[in-house]
Amino acid sequence: MMDDAMETGNLGPYQDRPRTFPNMRSKTTTPMMFRVLMRMNIRVLFVLLFLGFGAIYYIGASTSPIIVFVFTICIISFILSIYLTKWVLAKDEGPPEMVQISDAIRDGAEGFFKTQYGTISKMAFLLALVIFGIYMFRPQQESSGIGRLTSASITVFSFLLGALCSGMAGYVGMWVSVRANVRVSSAARRSAREALQIAVRAGGFSALVVVGMAVIGVAILYATFYVLLGVDSPGSMKVTDLPLLLVGYGFGASFVALFAQLGGGIYTKAADVGADLVGKVEQGIPEDDPRNPAVIADLVGDNVGDCAARGADLFESIAAEIISAMILGGTMAQRCKIEDPSGFILFPLVIHSFDLVISSVGIFSIRGTRDPGVIGGIMEDPMMILQKGYSVTIILAVVTFGLSTRWMLYTEQAPSAWLNFALCGLVGIMTAYIFVWITQYYTDYKHEPVRKLALASSTGHGTNIIAGVSLGLESTALPVLVISVSIVSAYWLGQTSGLVDETGNPTGGLFGTAVATMGMLSTAAYVLTMDMFGPIADNAGGIVEMSQQPESVREITDVLDAAGNTTKATTKGFAIGSAALASFLLFSAYMDEVATFAHTTFAQVDIAIPEVFVGGLLGSMLIFLFSAWACAAVGRTAQEVVNEVRRQFIERPGIMDYKEKPDYGRCVAIVASASLREMIKPGALAVISPIFIGIVFRILGYYTGHPLLGAKVVAAMLMFATVSGILMALFLNTAGGAWDNAKKYIETGALGGKGSESHKAAITGDTVGDPFKDTAGPSLHVLIKMLATITLVMAPIFL
Amino acid sequence: MMDDAMETGNLGPYQDRPRTFPNMRSKTTTPMMFRVLMRMNIRVLFVLLFLGFGAIYYIGASTSPIIVFVFTICIISFILSIYLTKWVLAKDEGPPEMVQISDAIRDGAEGFFKTQYGTISKMAFLLALVIFGIYMFRPQQESSGIGRLTSASITVFSFLLGALCSGMAGYVGMWVSVRANVRVSSAARRSAREALQIAVRAGGFSALVVVGMAVIGVAILYATFYVLLGVDSPGSMKVTDLPLLLVGYGFGASFVALFAQLGGGIYTKAADVGADLVGKVEQGIPEDDPRNPAVIADLVGDNVGDCAARGADLFESIAAEIISAMILGGTMAQRCKIEDPSGFILFPLVIHSFDLVISSVGIFSIRGTRDPGVIGGIMEDPMMILQKGYSVTIILAVVTFGLSTRWMLYTEQAPSAWLNFALCGLVGIMTAYIFVWITQYYTDYKHEPVRKLALASSTGHGTNIIAGVSLGLESTALPVLVISVSIVSAYWLGQTSGLVDETGNPTGGLFGTAVATMGMLSTAAYVLTMDMFGPIADNAGGIVEMSQQPESVREITDVLDAAGNTTKATTKGFAIGSAALASFLLFSAYMDEVATFAHTTFAQVDIAIPEVFVGGLLGSMLIFLFSAWACAAVGRTAQEVVNEVRRQFIERPGIMDYKEKPDYGRCVAIVASASLREMIKPGALAVISPIFIGIVFRILGYYTGHPLLGAKVVAAMLMFATVSGILMALFLNTAGGAWDNAKKYIETGALGGKGSESHKAAITGDTVGDPFKDTAGPSLHVLIKMLATITLVMAPIFL
Repeated sequence: MMDDAMETGNLGPYQDRPRTFPNMRSKTTTPMMFRVLMRMNIRVLFVLLFLGFGAIYYIGASTSPIIVFVFTICIISFILSIYLTKWVLAKDEGPPEMVQISDAIRDGAEGFFKTQYGTISKMAFLLALVIFGIYMFRPQQESSGIGRLTSASITVFSFLLGALCSGMAGYVGMWVSVRANVRVSSAARRSAREALQIAVRAGGFSALVVVGMAVIGVAILYATFYVLLGVDSPGSMKVTDLPLLLVGYGFGASFVALFAQLGGGIYTKAADVGADLVGKVEQGIPEDDPRNPAVIADLVGDNVGDCAARGADLFESIAAEIISAMILGGTMAQRCKIEDPSGFILFPLVIHSFDLVISSVGIFSIRGTRDPGVIGGIMEDPMMILQKGYSVTIILAVVTFGLSTRWMLYTEQAPSAWLNFALCGLVGIMTAYIFVWITQYYTDYKHEPVRKLALASSTGHGTNIIAGVSLGLESTALPVLVISVSIVSAYWLGQTSGLVDETGNPTGGLFGTAVATMGMLSTAAYVLTMDMFGPIADNAGGIVEMSQQPESVREITDVLDAAGNTTKATTKGFAIGSAALASFLLFSAYMDEVATFAHTTFAQVDIAIPEVFVGGLLGSMLIFLFSAWACAAVGRTAQEVVNEVRRQFIERPGIMDYKEKPDYGRCVAIVASASLREMIKPGALAVISPIFIGIVFRILGYYTGHPLLGAKVVAAMLMFATVSGILMALFLNTAGGAWDNAKKYIETGALGGKGSESHKAAITGDTVGDPFKDTAGPSLHVLIKMLATITLVMAPIFL
Repeated sequence: MMDDAMETGNLGPYQDRPRTFPNMRSKTTTPMMFRVLMRMNIRVLFVLLFLGFGAIYYIGASTSPIIVFVFTICIISFILSIYLTKWVLAKDEGPPEMVQISDAIRDGAEGFFKTQYGTISKMAFLLALVIFGIYMFRPQQESSGIGRLTSASITVFSFLLGALCSGMAGYVGMWVSVRANVRVSSAARRSAREALQIAVRAGGFSALVVVGMAVIGVAILYATFYVLLGVDSPGSMKVTDLPLLLVGYGFGASFVALFAQLGGGIYTKAADVGADLVGKVEQGIPEDDPRNPAVIADLVGDNVGDCAARGADLFESIAAEIISAMILGGTMAQRCKIEDPSGFILFPLVIHSFDLVISSVGIFSIRGTRDPGVIGGIMEDPMMILQKGYSVTIILAVVTFGLSTRWMLYTEQAPSAWLNFALCGLVGIMTAYIFVWITQYYTDYKHEPVRKLALASSTGHGTNIIAGVSLGLESTALPVLVISVSIVSAYWLGQTSGLVDETGNPTGGLFGTAVATMGMLSTAAYVLTMDMFGPIADNAGGIVEMSQQPESVREITDVLDAAGNTTKATTKGFAIGSAALASFLLFSAYMDEVATFAHTTFAQVDIAIPEVFVGGLLGSMLIFLFSAWACAAVGRTAQEVVNEVRRQFIERPGIMDYKEKPDYGRCVAIVASASLREMIKPGALAVISPIFIGIVFRILGYYTGHPLLGAKVVAAMLMFATVSGILMALFLNTAGGAWDNAKKYIETGALGGKGSESHKAAITGDTVGDPFKDTAGPSLHVLIKMLATITLVMAPIFL
């Protein structure tokens, strides 16, 4: 049908209707660096890259052949991602009304990005100064064999590089998304398959860049420090201590990711809730209608909240996981006196290099050529197509994981250890798979829970909320059981690997859990691709609606959007599961680090000590307070949007008849400035609390004669915050996802369908779920990892 | 005005209106024991009591003069409570229509009580058998110097006695409440002050009985075991080990309290939500209207849910706190080699004896004689009157606490220790006071938070819920800070008390926190009085409404009801604060017990061990799952009520015109059987989880060579569950209370008043808050203490 329309040139009646409003662009802002890069001739770019990577290669080659391998893979995947982006950008942008809308979205997103990252970078520089000061005046790290100034410079440099890369990860996600959305809309006029492919490849581009950047960033830092510090030459530091120097990178990444997620999350949901409350509920106009002054802000929000923030989130997950696994690998190799520890230390880099390879295969397995002649035919379920790609990736992951363990972790001291670790990896891969399955069970309306939730809507708003809250709370149980089994079994597999320390005690346990975490994240690039797919499809739907395309086009983007909602929900399950494991690793790394700095064993965090218990209590409380502030920020900002939109409808009565142009820019500006303001309070709470509590209890410990009290209290705080954070995030994400889909289920016609009382109750649930699942929940993922990295970096002041 | 009405005999137009329906009684059920007691001549009763107490006195005198003192105070307070109940019962029950309604409520409440406690006692007997088996086949406790059979019998006997007393505590609360409600209604026709006084004295009766029973129960057990086992005679057990034998009492109490709170909480809120959804929302009839078939079930719910359950809850708090403090006191006295340890062991009994005295003074300070001539005058704020009584009690508590510490805790080894402990007590009393204040701040509409919540209702159901959830989450912060400061400062005061063990290490820290907990609970009887006041006033209001009294009478009960809502909310703050401290004590007692049984030091719970961390994760998850099931149970049961009420309105169309009688009994029966069914799942989860996890990890520890792994994992589970439980309960209670009062605030006329859109949104919030604040929240208080006592009793199987 739609192809018919294409061929006859009759794209439906939209051309007779009033167009969308011209001049929606407010201002154009692209960071200079990117403008220069984009304008550059591709050949010049290649030459520059070649020279740059040549230098890096030289350093890598002086370090280890593994580093060279990692570099090579990363560079290949960058080239691949350039191919993907060229392919996406070569697609047409459709009619001018689409371009206009897309430009407005792009300007809004890039404008917000610029201001937001301006604020974040100011805070990052301030924090860098603080870190520098701490490392200059606390002598603990001199033990590692390097001077104070070197140590301080290394940490600050890593921190700033991590922050920069995290910012870039966010930017590329948004950059491709605001360009792909209009191309997906345009392609939806021709073919569902083509639209799907564009969205997947655009997502794939940012996924490859994000993961590649995380890997190459750590690899470059490692190689540079290796060469600069003359590691392993007599008298200087040991290679097994080297990973401890990289913690700054992880902290920088999580610091930026936290504020990116908070600001973006507040932005997207405040705009969404505000636009819906006045547009849908009060004025009765459909979603994404061009007459709604907040509609552009809403579409901008999808890009800054979902694309940019999730990119930074996964970047940070991978960086933190690599670094903590390297620290644990180093510690273990040292304890076991393994002759060449580089295999254990560099293992995570290799795993994530393979991740780039297998995810590329998965991305390219989704092809657009198979439906050449579908005319008015049945559209394939995009979820099936995406799942098929995921299956390909998972199978490859199992194979490459096994090969990597044999290659990297084989040691003559324990000839079968690699097999145990391969099984740990399998545990991780299975955990990821089960997590995705559980999330789908609780949030997809094909299954019992969401249907019951929809049924509860039929007795009113109140019962809908009670049922949703119960569902969310209940949904924490299975993931926790799965995580528990993973941790215990991976630890046990590691312990029985045959690796023993000098006294014959098995020591591979923690490294086993680290390998399981790597297994879980071993398909991260493909998962991120699926996640990025969501907001691009959502935006494309918005553009189709705003430019008033025919129903058939809208149908295609609706189906893509629905698939995107599912992938978004499942990615959150994946993200929280890996965050749980990564935090447990970072915690162990923290204890290793404190022990190194304090020249003492620090192997116990005894919660029977009242102060330590109090630390735990405060840690859990931090999670509750942070969630409260994140939700409240959305509520307050949405209120501002409601007032502005109401004002515009009153002051410009012509808007409803398309006679007057709504002031989109004002809504964008209001949401942007409000989210920047609102992200500070919860963010500052998260950054300052562990430092403050560590210092207070350090002083208390000093006066009551408890050495290491500060470090112990912070450790307890971290563990309790991690546990509460995982549970709270699971609750918020799942409840939000389930409410959203219960509403969608009713909209399919169940229980009275659209406009019924059940539907109204379901909309209430959806509104409540918005800040749960897109602001507070994802911010908690980042928060728990940020807490783990901040304690690692700040460890010297707790001693 | 109302006194005018009384004098002229013109009680308003209600006599012209159709009366309430006769024959609302379904069946009458009073436990035989109570029927016999009630019918007995008061003198015969006295003689019997005198003989019984004579025997007890004899045993007490053979143990310690302190026990004699405790007995005396308890008996005096029982006599006082008999005076109070005689005084209340002597009041008139008002016109026959009131009596009819009251009879129906009484029958419903007593019928449910009978069935519910029948179920609970069956489970308790089953569990008693299990405990007996465990103690017979696990030899650990033989170390204490007593045989297996003795140990098993003692534990089972204590457990059953605890369960019985807890049941009785629940019963007296309900017993007086269903009798006082109609007398308060009747008195409200004459004078506000008199109505207030009746409600307070009825509450005071059950408070004195509950606290007195907790104290005398422990004292009798202690004295009996002391005499039976020949404690302190050569070769037998030491007095400092004696308190460990009492843990069964605490577990029995908390086991019954958990199911009482769950069943009662589900009952009251399912009836409330169900009655409101059909009556208020669908049929548009006012609250407590006699035409609503679920109205009697709703009024019954207040009695079984609030009175019975809160009685059992506080009984259990006090019992658990006394026993754990006795254990810690004994351990400390032993370590410090204090010559006469009985002061340290029996201190909690003395504190709670004084509690009975000072609370009685507080209760009697509320007198009815001061407003003899108020005719149409201004009604005093009942909250002010109650607060004045509380202030009197608090001031007395400070004085008696100081005296008790000097009397009991003075030792020549550390002459100034008693002063430090007195300060610990002061910390506890202040903590209680600040908790009450914080709860009021977050739930009273005089303050900012509830007003903001009400404002959020003006933009719809969704924003109301978001704001309420944020408010609840945020409200956890201050209480946690206060608890943290209390724990650390009380511990520090204890450590610096000058008490040292053999090696010169200070050891008074944990006992310091125990004393702070006692300080917090030192006004428990008065607080419980205020709490019981709430549901009695609520019920009185219901009876006034159902019997269609004039507006002036309704006004009085409304004011009393509002005060009751505030006291109910603040008592919850008090209960959760004391639960937090008590759990921390029980946890320490658990570690002491494991160490005694396992003949090893068990002073550390190291969460860096993966299994222990997993235990913590599972503990926190337990809280989320339990809350989910408790909320879902209310939702499901309310659904059944909705269907039944809708059916009755359809099948008996004459109900709306008072021509047909609604079948109240059916609603009562439906709610009763549903709540009994629904309480099993969450309750069983709470009881079975710690046992199951302990056994699983004990076996795992056996095979992986970790001794005590089971005990450690359970300890971590307990601590994480406690922390998450405190936070979750604070969240649920405060959010629920705030939603309730935001609705009330709007009903005062703010933001559009009754019937406006804001009001509708606020009603949604109130409905959501109902299961939060009256089912899941209070059940969590009991749950965390039940977990602590179950681990104490089950400790042998984790080893």
